[in-house]
Amino acid sequence: MRVWTNARIATMVSLPRSFDIIERGFIVGQGEKIIQIGAMQETDDRILADATEIIDCDGRLITPGLIDCHTHIVWSGSRAAEFEGRLAGESYEQIAARGGGIRSTVASVQETSVEALMQNSLLRVDELLATGVTTLEIKSGYGLDFDNEVKLLEAIREIGCKREVSVHPTYLALHALPMEFASRRDEYVSLVVDDWLPQILRQGLCTAVDGFCEGIAFRTAEIKKLFESARTLGMRVKIHAEQLSRSGGAQLAADFSALSADHLEYTTEEDVLAMASRNVVAVLLPGAFYFLREKQRPPIDLFRKHRVPMAIATDCNPGTSPLTSILLAMNFAATLYRMTVLECWAGVTRNAAQALGILDRAGTIEVGKFCDLAIWNVEHPNELVYRLGSSPLYQRIWRGR
Amino acid sequence: MRVWTNARIATMVSLPRSFDIIERGFIVGQGEKIIQIGAMQETDDRILADATEIIDCDGRLITPGLIDCHTHIVWSGSRAAEFEGRLAGESYEQIAARGGGIRSTVASVQETSVEALMQNSLLRVDELLATGVTTLEIKSGYGLDFDNEVKLLEAIREIGCKREVSVHPTYLALHALPMEFASRRDEYVSLVVDDWLPQILRQGLCTAVDGFCEGIAFRTAEIKKLFESARTLGMRVKIHAEQLSRSGGAQLAADFSALSADHLEYTTEEDVLAMASRNVVAVLLPGAFYFLREKQRPPIDLFRKHRVPMAIATDCNPGTSPLTSILLAMNFAATLYRMTVLECWAGVTRNAAQALGILDRAGTIEVGKFCDLAIWNVEHPNELVYRLGSSPLYQRIWRGR
Repeated sequence: MRVWTNARIATMVSLPRSFDIIERGFIVGQGEKIIQIGAMQETDDRILADATEIIDCDGRLITPGLIDCHTHIVWSGSRAAEFEGRLAGESYEQIAARGGGIRSTVASVQETSVEALMQNSLLRVDELLATGVTTLEIKSGYGLDFDNEVKLLEAIREIGCKREVSVHPTYLALHALPMEFASRRDEYVSLVVDDWLPQILRQGLCTAVDGFCEGIAFRTAEIKKLFESARTLGMRVKIHAEQLSRSGGAQLAADFSALSADHLEYTTEEDVLAMASRNVVAVLLPGAFYFLREKQRPPIDLFRKHRVPMAIATDCNPGTSPLTSILLAMNFAATLYRMTVLECWAGVTRNAAQALGILDRAGTIEVGKFCDLAIWNVEHPNELVYRLGSSPLYQRIWRGR
Repeated sequence: MRVWTNARIATMVSLPRSFDIIERGFIVGQGEKIIQIGAMQETDDRILADATEIIDCDGRLITPGLIDCHTHIVWSGSRAAEFEGRLAGESYEQIAARGGGIRSTVASVQETSVEALMQNSLLRVDELLATGVTTLEIKSGYGLDFDNEVKLLEAIREIGCKREVSVHPTYLALHALPMEFASRRDEYVSLVVDDWLPQILRQGLCTAVDGFCEGIAFRTAEIKKLFESARTLGMRVKIHAEQLSRSGGAQLAADFSALSADHLEYTTEEDVLAMASRNVVAVLLPGAFYFLREKQRPPIDLFRKHRVPMAIATDCNPGTSPLTSILLAMNFAATLYRMTVLECWAGVTRNAAQALGILDRAGTIEVGKFCDLAIWNVEHPNELVYRLGSSPLYQRIWRGR
């Protein structure tokens, strides 16, 4: 039993309405769980006598551990030269001709071992954890063949073993069409849906299935086949939808009661109503919006109006969002999307937990939930959205430790 | 004598044309200075025998220590609640009525001691140093009366004593008109120019003088009086110019051969030509541009065309740029201003050194200059512009240590 005392505790229970701050409070953890929360004057001698450790927080702020519910953080190789080339005036065609773009990441992943992939990615994961993250979703998707997708999912699982963080692996089954299938789309989709998906689920390598629904990726009819198969196999789905154009992905997410629909810049009110009716979380990714210098913002007002929960994630990936700070993702959401500070916090705590299907276990500071906490050297949660390039984390507690 | 071996060294000597990378090189420091640089095959036994310490860099990248040439990093109080309020729909008037805005910072500074101001600001300075900064300009300007401006300049000086960083204190003499002088502008300007400025220079508290030239601040005629006085007293000047409108500040900077003109969103080609003719550095502050969601970008093409050196700085301040990462400032410049990776690096090394009048001593890795280095866990300088929210600094060397 461990007790954290003299903390300002933002339980985040009723976000986005309020932070629910206990000005001078304590938290009791037993094993992995929170078993008591209260104001300091409510502590009794029994609690303190039973504690194996009492940690005086000296007035520091405690929030729930942050949740990054959409990342592609496992990759190898670098796309920095591509970034440099584009700024120097190189066209997408020139970069593609040099073997750049997503294909360069796929090629690099294909020739890298599980061990090297993991070591490579741990550098980024550690940066993310240093911004208070205790739960992390990671997608595969750069393998593009069975063996390499499995390799990515194994590297993702290993990261959860090497670090004190809850890792949620997602099989991003339909991400990009491999070049060798350029004239055989249907064949590739069938291979993924009928062959690879069941095998990967049987091996227990993922907890959700994802698809990229976009003109440059896969059509709704193709994603639908994937989702039907996932449903038959009893696996929850999520989707990359309406990022660059309206493709119908958000509607599809609603049809399949997806955990979340992600990106959503081009979502219509009809889509938002569909999402609301099936409790699909809107996962917003302002890092990619910023990095790609997009102009069309997701319809925040409509999500508010129809009470669709909004989550915020880093989308950490080499091509469109090389972002390893969940705090900076919050500032992007505030500055670029005009989300309120309360909405930003809901986006990386309770709504992110809902997007991963774990709101009963994580995302707020409540009795019975995991004791996943972030302790900060600031007075108020608003500081952590406002500041740019700062991570005043004092300590991260994962599962009570 | 210390020798750094087996490093990839980006000397940055001919930026923005090239990084001048020595693939496998060494640097010899003696005392505070660099006395030799070369490729590993050029090392002779004498150098290694004479060294008191040999540091094997194991292939890591070495760049010049980074220079942040425009900050207001010394303040007290917090403006995070103001940020929160604005996002929640509060108007500037409502915030002002609650005592918000710059006045809240001024009020807080006025009631804070030198010691507390310094301790407060060191938290931010340490974050900035963690992004590879070895030289830092800091402006006063939140005092608005003689005693409090002196207090700020003393806190700034103290920071240079407490940390291993070169601090360049600037007296921001005309920043905002104090309320009590609302109907007596001329009286305030005379007080600053004729009374405070000479005293502050006599006390050796600053190495440059600055003014905020803008509709909401001071007019060119007022800044001109300040600059004339500074010239008479032998002190270099710089200016906040053309940030929110074209005010004529850049032209004034040229007239007085200012070290730099800063912000410059509304600069015209005529202004740029004037700056070019007097070698005035354009200090660009994309953090404020981002935070204020400005639309008008500074005329990068014109600066390029007329060969005006461009520097990039954080502008770290509580109201418009709470930014403590010079790396993120580079990414903002690349993403929002479309500056190339080479230009971004020039902006935080040699051009920033020129903006502080110290290019003969800092800003590149050259024999005879200060041994101010940043050693990084990356392979190429482009990684440090490309990544978002990361600071893969391995070690910072200031004056050879």
